[in-house]
Amino acid sequence: MTESVGELRARLGPRLLTGEAVQAYRHDAAPLAAPGVPLAVVRAREEGDVQQALRWAHRHHVAVVPRGGGTGLAGGATAVDGCLVVSLAGMDRIVEMRADDQYCVVQAGVITADLDRAAARHGLMYAPDPSSHETSTIGGNLATNAGGLRCVKYGVTRDWTLGLRAVLADGRVLATGRRTVKGVAGYDLTGLLVGSEGTLGVIVEATLRLRPRPSGAPVTVVAQFPLLEAAATAALEITRAGLDPGLMELLDAATLAALSDHTRMDFEEAAALLLVQFDGAGREDAADAALAVLTRGGAGTALRSESAAEAAELVGLRRLAYPALARRGVPFTEDVCVPRSRLAEMVRHIQAVAAAHACEIATVAHAGDGNLHPLFVLPHGTTGIPANVSRAADEIFARALELGGTLTGEHGVGTLKRRWLEREMSAECAEVTRAVKWALDPHGILNPGKAVPFPGEGDGDDLPG
Amino acid sequence: MTESVGELRARLGPRLLTGEAVQAYRHDAAPLAAPGVPLAVVRAREEGDVQQALRWAHRHHVAVVPRGGGTGLAGGATAVDGCLVVSLAGMDRIVEMRADDQYCVVQAGVITADLDRAAARHGLMYAPDPSSHETSTIGGNLATNAGGLRCVKYGVTRDWTLGLRAVLADGRVLATGRRTVKGVAGYDLTGLLVGSEGTLGVIVEATLRLRPRPSGAPVTVVAQFPLLEAAATAALEITRAGLDPGLMELLDAATLAALSDHTRMDFEEAAALLLVQFDGAGREDAADAALAVLTRGGAGTALRSESAAEAAELVGLRRLAYPALARRGVPFTEDVCVPRSRLAEMVRHIQAVAAAHACEIATVAHAGDGNLHPLFVLPHGTTGIPANVSRAADEIFARALELGGTLTGEHGVGTLKRRWLEREMSAECAEVTRAVKWALDPHGILNPGKAVPFPGEGDGDDLPG
Repeated sequence: MTESVGELRARLGPRLLTGEAVQAYRHDAAPLAAPGVPLAVVRAREEGDVQQALRWAHRHHVAVVPRGGGTGLAGGATAVDGCLVVSLAGMDRIVEMRADDQYCVVQAGVITADLDRAAARHGLMYAPDPSSHETSTIGGNLATNAGGLRCVKYGVTRDWTLGLRAVLADGRVLATGRRTVKGVAGYDLTGLLVGSEGTLGVIVEATLRLRPRPSGAPVTVVAQFPLLEAAATAALEITRAGLDPGLMELLDAATLAALSDHTRMDFEEAAALLLVQFDGAGREDAADAALAVLTRGGAGTALRSESAAEAAELVGLRRLAYPALARRGVPFTEDVCVPRSRLAEMVRHIQAVAAAHACEIATVAHAGDGNLHPLFVLPHGTTGIPANVSRAADEIFARALELGGTLTGEHGVGTLKRRWLEREMSAECAEVTRAVKWALDPHGILNPGKAVPFPGEGDGDDLPG
Repeated sequence: MTESVGELRARLGPRLLTGEAVQAYRHDAAPLAAPGVPLAVVRAREEGDVQQALRWAHRHHVAVVPRGGGTGLAGGATAVDGCLVVSLAGMDRIVEMRADDQYCVVQAGVITADLDRAAARHGLMYAPDPSSHETSTIGGNLATNAGGLRCVKYGVTRDWTLGLRAVLADGRVLATGRRTVKGVAGYDLTGLLVGSEGTLGVIVEATLRLRPRPSGAPVTVVAQFPLLEAAATAALEITRAGLDPGLMELLDAATLAALSDHTRMDFEEAAALLLVQFDGAGREDAADAALAVLTRGGAGTALRSESAAEAAELVGLRRLAYPALARRGVPFTEDVCVPRSRLAEMVRHIQAVAAAHACEIATVAHAGDGNLHPLFVLPHGTTGIPANVSRAADEIFARALELGGTLTGEHGVGTLKRRWLEREMSAECAEVTRAVKWALDPHGILNPGKAVPFPGEGDGDDLPG
């Protein structure tokens, strides 16, 4: 194999890393996934580099692990021993910005927030905003079909994707989709690649929709509730009334306790906090209507922002939650999603599980989507997943499925949840998934061990929860 | 084969039609597609009927042509000789309506407009509204990823689809997707099946999103322009300003001439008419802003509706266009889509093509999407596609592709456009499409001759344009 790596080095020169340098490319932001050691790393600068890498890997049956910003929380970019890591981070060019037609063409390594800022210079926005948007790449967002705070109103990454260029397992370049907002010629291969976690091809470029940036400063409404159920019902009422919030977040009592500790604010009395933001036309009326809904719904205190600064500051509470929790130990974030009406039931279950297994779990939810992030705070110094945490996560997944939900709303399957996949998918769905996988990647070299369920895995317990 | 049909009859009884009764199931609303004669027709009443049909067809290698309301315009439900037609029209039950969670579960045969009316009883809407929505079925809408007038604001059928049940080629039932608004567990097989025109499976049930119905009556703005280019630019300005119209339609001079003929209105002086409707919060302000944009943009006359009745009446002009044109001959509708900024260029090209090939072509466009419907008016009594029409359509497709557009914005590929597919798709895209097709349908029995490009077809001229 050393000899073959020489072959690749002859083609890629300093864009190929070996030896100690590969250590930095072993894992993403899911540190509890057990990473292997790559044989080498390709730091691609152009599409041709990725083609060279994949042709070589295909010929030698070497596993390929693509990566972007390394911010994944499910281990989708976890290296396996002897693999070739292909980093797209260096392909960071915005190729075209077509303001009139409201689309752009970008390379996979463009940072999510950079794209939104570039769009803003034309009065446009790129809405998907995963928490890591200042360091995550569009390629990684596409691989995981990333969400974020704004997707309750504006949709997830797939909804913004018109077309792709991806390098297939054998090095061919697949161009999918189009530059028009509508189009039905052929199968939706664009949508198939989005969310496939690098198991069907390596995305190198994307044509993405943009839309007019909402004008004016957003308005934020915040309410504390003495009862979790009241907060969840109020969130449902806001959705039901068609007020169309630009974000709607619920913080539970454990999160509020950490925030009280971390800031000078006092949320000790509240069982839940609901943060709702409105943007664009009609935002003032919507905020007033929401305030009335929250008050009528039993909020202890409820207020709305009176200035842009205040609107941003209130939403800032949500962004402070993770740092506040991370100070208490090693954070491990989960990502279940349930039908909206089951939100309170799911939070209560998480709280019961935490008590039963002696875990510290704080939950923040994208309440408008029913997407919950139970955050386990593990003791400082924890490196693997403790047995009680694994059992607690198992129980959380099981209940999410019982409630008609899913194991993962926006983080992906990666390595962490693969053994659970077949409990969510029907057997036929798993069979068709594998049939598609083998049709596109006959040697199985593309990101092995991620996203695709394999028979019998659901029975094993060798992987963390 | 007659013996084998007996086998199927034993299982399906009167749900199986043979003999003269099959004649009514030979074609959809694309009468210029040359239909074959089916061996038999299954009028499915439940999922099990479809499974029986497909197991039998798989065993005997018999082609299966699924159909819903028979309203397709691209020939996607055109029978081939000796096939088994599977009609889903009888599976027309709304299985669940979950108002709080804003989704429903419906069988494939539910009529599109019936679903929207059922949703309205809960204050909700199902937005995709192809022109045939009073007779088209959800299953057909899913198979073609149907659009409509409202999709400029609310998206197309795929955007409303959370999950599916489909019977695979060998009779297995594939359940895809979920009941939550977000979810990233596994490949997007839901999106893959939507728009695949029955070539990957027969959709029998769908879980569809609903959303709050916009409150209050919509407001319509209408403007006549002496110059087509001014109308197209004004439409672009409305999109650019983020006014978010609920529909935005452009009618060209030939359409207006037919309308003048058909009604007592006089549009003889206008080169184009733009109809823009606004719904939901902020619609009054948006209508005022649009009126200003249109006036500034060179509209000859521009006005906005002052009542709900007037708003509906103005949009009614758009719905009158087809009857007005159909009186003049046999209508044959095309369906190209281009980036929005190329709309005027595309209309001009269509007008030049009409003159060059001595065809009568009138164009109505979903201006907010860049989706144009050039409608050929063929002489009364025409049954095939005349040579000049075929050449004209060829030139229209070629220009749409040159402008960065697509052959079909919302009608589908069907039989009519398959020979053109490989001019739009890259070779690799066609290869991957076939790989997916064979992985799911190894005997190639599912809707043969539709949607999937085959090598060398782009060179032939045996199929109409």
